Amino acid sequence: MSSAASLALLLQELDHLDLVTAGPQLQQLSQDQFGFSPLLSALFHDCRADVVVRARCREEVVSVAAACHRHGVPLTPRGSGTGNYGQCVPLQGGVVLDTSAMTAVRHLDPVAGVLTAEPGCRLLELDRQLQPQGWALRLAPSTWRTASLGGFIAGGSSGVGSLRWGLLRDPGNLLGLEVVTMEAQPQVLQLGPEACRGLNHAYGTNGVFTAVTVPLAPWQNWQELVISCPNQATALALGEQLTASALEIDGLAYLDAELMGRMPPLPGLEMPSAPCLLLIAAPAALAVIGELAAASGAHCCFQRDQWPPSGLLLRELCWNHTTLQLRLQDP
Amino acid sequence: MSSAASLALLLQELDHLDLVTAGPQLQQLSQDQFGFSPLLSALFHDCRADVVVRARCREEVVSVAAACHRHGVPLTPRGSGTGNYGQCVPLQGGVVLDTSAMTAVRHLDPVAGVLTAEPGCRLLELDRQLQPQGWALRLAPSTWRTASLGGFIAGGSSGVGSLRWGLLRDPGNLLGLEVVTMEAQPQVLQLGPEACRGLNHAYGTNGVFTAVTVPLAPWQNWQELVISCPNQATALALGEQLTASALEIDGLAYLDAELMGRMPPLPGLEMPSAPCLLLIAAPAALAVIGELAAASGAHCCFQRDQWPPSGLLLRELCWNHTTLQLRLQDP
Repeated sequence: MSSAASLALLLQELDHLDLVTAGPQLQQLSQDQFGFSPLLSALFHDCRADVVVRARCREEVVSVAAACHRHGVPLTPRGSGTGNYGQCVPLQGGVVLDTSAMTAVRHLDPVAGVLTAEPGCRLLELDRQLQPQGWALRLAPSTWRTASLGGFIAGGSSGVGSLRWGLLRDPGNLLGLEVVTMEAQPQVLQLGPEACRGLNHAYGTNGVFTAVTVPLAPWQNWQELVISCPNQATALALGEQLTASALEIDGLAYLDAELMGRMPPLPGLEMPSAPCLLLIAAPAALAVIGELAAASGAHCCFQRDQWPPSGLLLRELCWNHTTLQLRLQDP
Repeated sequence: MSSAASLALLLQELDHLDLVTAGPQLQQLSQDQFGFSPLLSALFHDCRADVVVRARCREEVVSVAAACHRHGVPLTPRGSGTGNYGQCVPLQGGVVLDTSAMTAVRHLDPVAGVLTAEPGCRLLELDRQLQPQGWALRLAPSTWRTASLGGFIAGGSSGVGSLRWGLLRDPGNLLGLEVVTMEAQPQVLQLGPEACRGLNHAYGTNGVFTAVTVPLAPWQNWQELVISCPNQATALALGEQLTASALEIDGLAYLDAELMGRMPPLPGLEMPSAPCLLLIAAPAALAVIGELAAASGAHCCFQRDQWPPSGLLLRELCWNHTTLQLRLQDP
C-alpha cells in the first residue's frame, strides 16, 4: 500500500495526464469480469486503484512507470478488462494504467502479413482494418468485439486459440513487443519473437506493452455453423473426425442439449434442444462437413457468414461466453 | 491382349479422334518415369499401347470407353506421366487415353476458394491462373511444373502433401470428380467428397476423370529457404521444432551433407556440404525460423521468393526429384 504522501507526490507529477481519481469509473477500471467467480468476487471486492492513468502514447507510459518507481507506488496495467480472473485488479491500490486510448496501427506489411499495433486496439476494430487488405488476426477470443490487443496477449486470454494456429503461446503467434520497463529510468525495449515469450501472458508484470507485433492469417469468408447431433457420443466423435480432416476450421465447440436449449437465439434459428457442435469453418469445408455430419445422423441447422459481424455472434455462445449467457438469464 | 481384329474395329470406330498409332510418341505415351527403378524397367520395357487417343472433351472420353468395352480392348488413362511406378503403363497393350488436351477451367468460386478443372490442366498453369485472384492449389508435388491435375489425383502422387493440408487422401483435399465409367453405355457420374474417396489415387482403374474439384488455399508469398545445420541431429531436432510451432510452413525436407553437396546449385548459393533443411515458408514465419535456427547453431544460407517460379526450384531438390538430380549427373 502506498503512503498518502507518496500518492500525493505522484499525482502532482502526473497531473498533465488524463487521470481518473474518483467516481464509478475508478471502480470500473479497477475490475475485470472476475464477478463470474464467487471466490474471486469476495477477494477482489474492495480492491480499487487510487488513480487510473489513461496513457495516450508511449512517452506517457514511460512517465507513469518512472513516477511509480520513484514514489514506490504499485502499477497495474490493464486492457479492456474482459478477463475473468482479476488479471488487471490493483491488489494493493496505486496506479492502474489504462492503454485503451493507444490505438495506432504502427505498421502493416500487406505482403508478409505482419501487423504492429498499439495495445489499446480492439481486436474486431483491427480486423475491420485488415479485412479489405485480405488479412485477419489469427486468433480471436469470444470477446472479439471488446478485447484489446495488449490485454489479449498480456493476459486476457486463458489460451483459447484456433484449430489452425494453436494457442497464443505457441511459438510463431507473437512476433514482437515494444515494452516499457519498471525502473528508475524506464527503458523502451524492442523484443523479438524469442525474447518476448516470457512476457506473453504474464499480465504486464514484467513490462508494460506499448506495441505488439503479430502474424496475420489470410482473410476467409468464415461460416458460422451449428450442427445438431443425435447424442453426445456422436457429437464428440464427429468433432474428432472433423478436426482430423484436411478442412479449414477456425474453431469448434461442443454444447450439450441443456446448454443449447438455454442459449439466446441466433437469428432465424430455433435453438435445438440437442447436443450441438458450433463450428467456424471456411466455405470450401462445407461440402465435406455436410457429408460427414449426415453420415453421423447429424445435420446443419444454422449457417451464416461471420463477416461482417452483426448481432449475436456464434463465438459469443462459446468458451466463457457460455457462462456469461447463462448469468444474463439467471445471475 | 486384344485380338488384331478387335483392334482394327476399334480403330475404325475411333478414327475421327486424335490418334497416335506408331512412332516414338506411341512409345513415350506408354511410359512414365518408371526408369528410376531397374526392376520396373525390366518389367515394363516392352509394354506399349496399340493406340494412344488424345481426348479433347468428355464426349470423346465416353466414345473411347464405349468402344473399348464393346471390343474388349484394355483402356489405360494417363496424365503427364510424372509418376515413378508405372501407374499409366498399358500392361496388356490396347488403348492409352491421354487427357492432356483437356485443360478447361470449368469453374472457380473466388469466394469459397473451390476450383473445378479438367484433368489435363498442369498444376503450375492452374496456379498461374489462380494467383491473381489470391488463391493457390493446396498441394504441389516436386513435379509442380509438369504434373497434371488428373494424374496428380489419380496416381501421380505417392502421397506427398503439405505440412498445412496433410496428404492428398485426407478428407477435405478432394471435393468432387466427374467420372466416365467403363461399361456398354458409359455413364458420366458427378461424385461428391465421400463418393470420390474410392477413386482418389486409384490410377483411373475404376473410372476416367473428366473433371476434378479441389479446395484452394489463400495464396502466400512463399519463401524458399535453405537452413544449413551443424549436424544431422540438430537438423532433425530443428525440423521437429519448426513443424510443432505456429508457423506457416508449406513443406520441409531434410538432405544430408553428401546429398546437398551433389545437388545442382540454386542461383547465388554455393550448395553447402552440410546437413540442410529445405523449407517453403510464409514471410511471417521468417523471424521465428531465423531465431530458432540461430539457437541451434544453424543459419539460413538461401532465401528466395517462390513466385513467380523461374529456373531451378527448391522443391525440385526434394522427394523423388533428389533421385532425379543424382541420375542426371550419374545415370
